[in-house]
Amino acid sequence: MTKFDEATQAIRVDENTYDVCLDPGYSIGGPLNGGYLMAAVLRAAVDASPFEHPVSTTVQFLRAPVPGPAQVRVEPLKTGKTAAFSRVTLVQDGVAQIEGLITTATLHGAEPIYADKATYEMPPIEQCVKLPDPKPQSGMTLNAQVEVLFDPPTIAWLKGEPTGRPESRAYFRMTEPQDPDPYVLALAVDALPPVVFSAGGRGWAPTVDLTWHLRALPAPGWLTVLGGGRLVADGWFDEEVEVRDSTGRLVAQSRQLARVGRG
Amino acid sequence: MTKFDEATQAIRVDENTYDVCLDPGYSIGGPLNGGYLMAAVLRAAVDASPFEHPVSTTVQFLRAPVPGPAQVRVEPLKTGKTAAFSRVTLVQDGVAQIEGLITTATLHGAEPIYADKATYEMPPIEQCVKLPDPKPQSGMTLNAQVEVLFDPPTIAWLKGEPTGRPESRAYFRMTEPQDPDPYVLALAVDALPPVVFSAGGRGWAPTVDLTWHLRALPAPGWLTVLGGGRLVADGWFDEEVEVRDSTGRLVAQSRQLARVGRG
Repeated sequence: MTKFDEATQAIRVDENTYDVCLDPGYSIGGPLNGGYLMAAVLRAAVDASPFEHPVSTTVQFLRAPVPGPAQVRVEPLKTGKTAAFSRVTLVQDGVAQIEGLITTATLHGAEPIYADKATYEMPPIEQCVKLPDPKPQSGMTLNAQVEVLFDPPTIAWLKGEPTGRPESRAYFRMTEPQDPDPYVLALAVDALPPVVFSAGGRGWAPTVDLTWHLRALPAPGWLTVLGGGRLVADGWFDEEVEVRDSTGRLVAQSRQLARVGRG
Repeated sequence: MTKFDEATQAIRVDENTYDVCLDPGYSIGGPLNGGYLMAAVLRAAVDASPFEHPVSTTVQFLRAPVPGPAQVRVEPLKTGKTAAFSRVTLVQDGVAQIEGLITTATLHGAEPIYADKATYEMPPIEQCVKLPDPKPQSGMTLNAQVEVLFDPPTIAWLKGEPTGRPESRAYFRMTEPQDPDPYVLALAVDALPPVVFSAGGRGWAPTVDLTWHLRALPAPGWLTVLGGGRLVADGWFDEEVEVRDSTGRLVAQSRQLARVGRG
């Protein structure tokens, strides 16, 4: 069991309740990373399902839970022949923090009937770059758990040179050796800096809701995370992420709606 | 009040319950159209919210409700300064049919900071074509409510000539004169034939879950509905729809996960 497996572990305490212990190692400077929280919630939902994989996940981020004990309540809504539906709630100190709807099914890895190409061809990994290490007082502990190598133009906002388009692209893997799985993908779809930073946005850009689909089980190796967006308006932006595995296969698709920061 | 407004009306009967009467005029050959059902559910969610617009909607289609009386239960989850979260359930004969998570907010129509171009340029409307009228015994009553003019290649599957890619594109408006609004958009994001028909799929392709975001209030006139997909594999496909208003503005974005038909 890796540190990430342990940090997202959900232990069943009764038919519909799981205990989790939210790990301070997944903080993004105060709040815990949304992808990490999804992974913990998904562990419970999959354990409670007769199927093996979380094919669709929607979460609303109602509040920002803190590191420490929390519970996941799983309410099965319907179990069919090929898929099961459930509602999940992450609760801390009796208060709902995250609300979700999850569809589980079992993927078999059959050859695709149709598969689109990646929307972008990444430069070779040797040409991609890390973000500077965060200052210890920033509380950005997530950075130590993941290795993220960026397509350079998409972090040029750091030097005050945003590309003018919402975008964020990187190679991604866990720092502790671990083959990617659906829980690592949950982390990956929400692990990059907000795409709006490349469009000139700044400051805390809270995710309001996020939906992602697991399309195939990822092969071992680096993931490629391609993030973009279509519209920044009225204080809102969309962030869309496509994750490819090391063989180029589409393994996850996500879209989130988030607020533009005021920082 | 148009026929569509009436068919989606939700009348509050107590703090958290709304009565709706599901209209047989929105059938797609047996089941009711998913977009129509979303519109009815959204009426209740918006009425119960202090905000004006459904900016994010996720629904799971648990079962297929039939025309006639039903209830929408709205459970407010959190109301913040800029957005409110709620859970909604469409119930018929005491059984949950549709489960949803809805985020409401108020859009103000400010000039975008960034706006992407449409992913596809539609041919002029004069070059677009209607589907043949459905046979009365097909039960496809939805077709009478909407005017849909297709980009011809995307319905060539009708002649046994699918393009080989998941796609479905059309101009869209209500048959009864009505300016588009968020409820018409809920219908529009799920109104076209499944994109998988253009990739060679056939038969009933049930939507498992659908998420859509309202990005701006649409201007009067025709909507442009651009549908595509990235992967058809393992019995599943994604359908992504982008809706533009008559000024070219992005007004809605959706993604659904659906099963490939066996027909």
